[in-house]
Amino acid sequence: MTDTIEKFYELTEKDFTPETEQELRELIPSGSVGIAQINPSAGNIEYNSKKVAKYIRHAQNIGLDLIIFPEMVLTGFPLEDTTGRYPTLVEENVKWLNQIAKITTKTTALVGFIEPVKDKAGKYYSAVAVLSCGEIKKIIRKCVLPKNSEFNDFRYIEPFTDKNQNSFEINEKVYGIIVGLQIPDNIDEIMKENPDGLIICDANPFCLKTEIPKSELLQQIAQKCSKPLIYVNQVGATDSTTFAGASIVYNTGGNLFARAKSFEEQFMIVNFENCLGKVYPDLLPKQKEEFSLDYDDDMERTYKTIIQGIKDYFGKTGFKRAVLGLSGGLDSTVCAVLLADALGCENVFGISMPSKITTQTSKSDAEQLAANLGINFAVAPIKDMVETSANCFNQLFEKVESKWECRYKQSYTMDNIQARSRAMYLWGISNEFGSCLPIATSDKSEAYMGYATINGDMSGGFAPIANVTKTKLFALARWMNKNREDKNAIPESIIQKRPGAELAIDPNTGKPLCAEDALMPYEFMDEVIWRLENKKESYDDLLKAEFLYEKTHKITKEQKAQWLDKFYRRMAGALYKGSIMPPSVDVDSSLHHKQPITSSGINYKSISENEIAEILSVYFQ
Amino acid sequence: MTDTIEKFYELTEKDFTPETEQELRELIPSGSVGIAQINPSAGNIEYNSKKVAKYIRHAQNIGLDLIIFPEMVLTGFPLEDTTGRYPTLVEENVKWLNQIAKITTKTTALVGFIEPVKDKAGKYYSAVAVLSCGEIKKIIRKCVLPKNSEFNDFRYIEPFTDKNQNSFEINEKVYGIIVGLQIPDNIDEIMKENPDGLIICDANPFCLKTEIPKSELLQQIAQKCSKPLIYVNQVGATDSTTFAGASIVYNTGGNLFARAKSFEEQFMIVNFENCLGKVYPDLLPKQKEEFSLDYDDDMERTYKTIIQGIKDYFGKTGFKRAVLGLSGGLDSTVCAVLLADALGCENVFGISMPSKITTQTSKSDAEQLAANLGINFAVAPIKDMVETSANCFNQLFEKVESKWECRYKQSYTMDNIQARSRAMYLWGISNEFGSCLPIATSDKSEAYMGYATINGDMSGGFAPIANVTKTKLFALARWMNKNREDKNAIPESIIQKRPGAELAIDPNTGKPLCAEDALMPYEFMDEVIWRLENKKESYDDLLKAEFLYEKTHKITKEQKAQWLDKFYRRMAGALYKGSIMPPSVDVDSSLHHKQPITSSGINYKSISENEIAEILSVYFQ
Repeated sequence: MTDTIEKFYELTEKDFTPETEQELRELIPSGSVGIAQINPSAGNIEYNSKKVAKYIRHAQNIGLDLIIFPEMVLTGFPLEDTTGRYPTLVEENVKWLNQIAKITTKTTALVGFIEPVKDKAGKYYSAVAVLSCGEIKKIIRKCVLPKNSEFNDFRYIEPFTDKNQNSFEINEKVYGIIVGLQIPDNIDEIMKENPDGLIICDANPFCLKTEIPKSELLQQIAQKCSKPLIYVNQVGATDSTTFAGASIVYNTGGNLFARAKSFEEQFMIVNFENCLGKVYPDLLPKQKEEFSLDYDDDMERTYKTIIQGIKDYFGKTGFKRAVLGLSGGLDSTVCAVLLADALGCENVFGISMPSKITTQTSKSDAEQLAANLGINFAVAPIKDMVETSANCFNQLFEKVESKWECRYKQSYTMDNIQARSRAMYLWGISNEFGSCLPIATSDKSEAYMGYATINGDMSGGFAPIANVTKTKLFALARWMNKNREDKNAIPESIIQKRPGAELAIDPNTGKPLCAEDALMPYEFMDEVIWRLENKKESYDDLLKAEFLYEKTHKITKEQKAQWLDKFYRRMAGALYKGSIMPPSVDVDSSLHHKQPITSSGINYKSISENEIAEILSVYFQ
Repeated sequence: MTDTIEKFYELTEKDFTPETEQELRELIPSGSVGIAQINPSAGNIEYNSKKVAKYIRHAQNIGLDLIIFPEMVLTGFPLEDTTGRYPTLVEENVKWLNQIAKITTKTTALVGFIEPVKDKAGKYYSAVAVLSCGEIKKIIRKCVLPKNSEFNDFRYIEPFTDKNQNSFEINEKVYGIIVGLQIPDNIDEIMKENPDGLIICDANPFCLKTEIPKSELLQQIAQKCSKPLIYVNQVGATDSTTFAGASIVYNTGGNLFARAKSFEEQFMIVNFENCLGKVYPDLLPKQKEEFSLDYDDDMERTYKTIIQGIKDYFGKTGFKRAVLGLSGGLDSTVCAVLLADALGCENVFGISMPSKITTQTSKSDAEQLAANLGINFAVAPIKDMVETSANCFNQLFEKVESKWECRYKQSYTMDNIQARSRAMYLWGISNEFGSCLPIATSDKSEAYMGYATINGDMSGGFAPIANVTKTKLFALARWMNKNREDKNAIPESIIQKRPGAELAIDPNTGKPLCAEDALMPYEFMDEVIWRLENKKESYDDLLKAEFLYEKTHKITKEQKAQWLDKFYRRMAGALYKGSIMPPSVDVDSSLHHKQPITSSGINYKSISENEIAEILSVYFQ
């Protein structure tokens, strides 16, 4: 049997040709179920419907009993306020559903869509239609909306209040259906209908912290009900939001029976009676209790999440090509590799735009990288633009200074001209050549610190690595060198180099200024970020904690406090920069770090009640 | 009595000096209540607490019975995930509350704050503390959370489930308190405690469409309970979100008794027994059934909303000065006036950055405008930067063309170099001079159409008019010319001119290309926007509707369809530009027009079931 299963899954991983369909039909036992874990495009009903139709045809050709799609597969998810701006969208998805129903045969299909609520304009149910033999046999609606929706679903989705209509029968088996995974208060009602199995259709945004609790919850439901449970999830990216797929199946005993791939569209087939199921790896890293530089167990997931994010942002917006500056530094290097893998090397153009500060190594590293990747490459010096701008600036600044005080003695103006001249080139190419988007290469550590130039390296239509910290990017670079088909595409000297923007010379060394010298060691900075996001620690907690960096480096309490102060000050000052950062890929979590830009006056240090009393006393004398 | 009231309100509108306090103390009858409609800064507890203490001192000096603050006044609202990033924030606000309590005397103060939920880390109640005689007498908690929170309050705020603890007594009067205006299912419980009056502390984001329903709801509550109702709202802006203030008071009969100012911090005093109350105008326009170019009844509100938005964005982020390009066109002109009024003319720098396309009129209009406003002004030609960039570009483009197809025959590259060179100047000034933010001058009509240059006119730290359509901006310009203290600051020729970016020459006229010729008439475009936002019309609805423009211009069905197609195509293509637009001011409504960037593939036209069947038939042969 194991051989059959292997053979079987080998076949399903290929494109479905009439030949593979024939082979599969012979292999598949009766009573098999298809899980269509697909990647829909939000709002693009025709695209999604064709995909659904294609999979239904396969299911019918193969001879499956049942094929299951994710929640809202016809419309895609999330929609935000799209149904408000396009009020016929729902009408259209019903039309497509009707026509898809007509072409179903014996194979039953469960298709997620949105259904108008009678007499309530602009309100809809998230529903799953049971289609077979040319008809819509039944519609099952979502009863419990997420309490904490990220995407304002409550604006257009209504919860359905009749909880007793959630099962359907197929080949003498009764299935209970739940639309959307919540802690489902209607499980008990569904169980009264005595189903032989449970099906959950979902479109669940990926969040690293909640993935394990989510699968535990699913297992608990399966155990509680003592019935097989099939959970079908959406895969793909909608803007920055990641959907991981990883649809999951538990057997009657509540044991893991099958799991689909992560970050890949997949048509998976399971059969409980015949033990036809395969568990693909979920790629989830171990839960970390302490900050660590060992990112190994999370590299494949990180890589695949970003690749999916780039592919889908470009694919779904219609862009095909990317142009980016290649500085010979880590950030642009990692971006270039990811873009080449996501879009194809022929669709990536790397431009080396050296200034007088750019070192010879940086230039040759950039060129070597492009050659290794096979991406397009050109050199475009910025000297003329920088000089012209500087001249123009100086004349204008004198005029401004005659009216305005507070001209900085030392400013970043001349540094930033370089970054902005580079962005001029990139947007120029985007204007001149079709379907081409410039890339912002900022990383998460520098985004936290606001250590990036507006209209410079922060500028672009998409920012692939803006949610990855610098130390993790180093690990990713090494991992890609080891694990991509073409080994060692990234020159070792790029990984060895201390990061810096190469915009200014360090007066102490006479060499380009390193970011760590201007900020603080990345290892320390990334641990602060990790503790803020994972441990919810305060300034005082951080001051007390022993950092990994402190185990290998002797630093004074004062030094540490100084770095922490700088971190908090820069983080608050960077809020407004974050507001104009282009979309990125949510790698670890979703949006749970929103903060008003205008809250930058927050005090991160604690203050004693005595001090408060002192401050307030002026009001009460 | 009327004279006393007038005198009285005259006094409260000034700064409180010991003298005015003395005068007020003599005028005020016993049993008076103060409504402290204040503008807090999100997260800045010290700032907010000082403000609260200051108002409490006034209330005590004047001899009020009671002073009422908005919901969450100590922390400011919204907070989004700020309590997650700053986990001691709540602890701190409790400390400040304790100390504020200590300095209260006979005057009772109701102060909104957030209170930790016991044994539930990271979860809080939105609560109102009843402070008097040096103590916290009682804490009343929010029971009903908004179902449709824009700001993810559910992530940190818990609803309080014991609904029977909502009243307190002061001078033998019992008040029922509600935290946050929801359709309050606990009103009945509160009425069981037989209060003499109801108080609602709120922090309610302004939305033009819901303001009238909101005051109707308040009146219904007052009528139902037959008790006086005092509704205290936050005022000010947090990022793009507007809080209007307009705190409102109904008497026992459910009649409007008093209303505080809109878009202004105010300390308002009311006394039911002595008919001490004043109704300030709410500035709300009439509900429009049809699109109209007559914006007169909404001009003051629009102006004040934007002024508040600019003041608070700058004030709360710590920026003090603005720099913008003055093109002599409408958008930059309106921005300049608003900035001068919000920040002070000495803090605004207008830069005229002519190119060879810029007309003489544009140059002189810009200069005249600056002189009229008294803002700083300088001229900085972009010729050198444009020429140098163009030279650099041409060399690079040849290299790119050798690898990439699809070089446009006619591109916007050379047009955009101009806009981007200007942004280079502005960000240069921002880097060189302290506390200075460049301004993006895009308007709403052009933002919808993506008719703006990334890193050009779309670039800045703040976009004051990005939520105002072009035809409304024309009206606003005229209104400001008539109603500002300095009349006619805007040269008439700017208002008369047909808008255009002056980036390219129209080959048909030999003059700078007008935006309407490239897009469609603004009057038509703005009606499409109005219908989408207010009528939720579809493409087919729009095609059928009779537009205002059609009443005065003969256009063919084909012309109309062509404009609508262009509108929908450009709107979808502009989604990604919108993602990198800086923060603005929500003038009419809040965020109810979110749409995934990657949903640009949406079909705005409807399709028949026959066509769908035809498309799907390929999958089922």
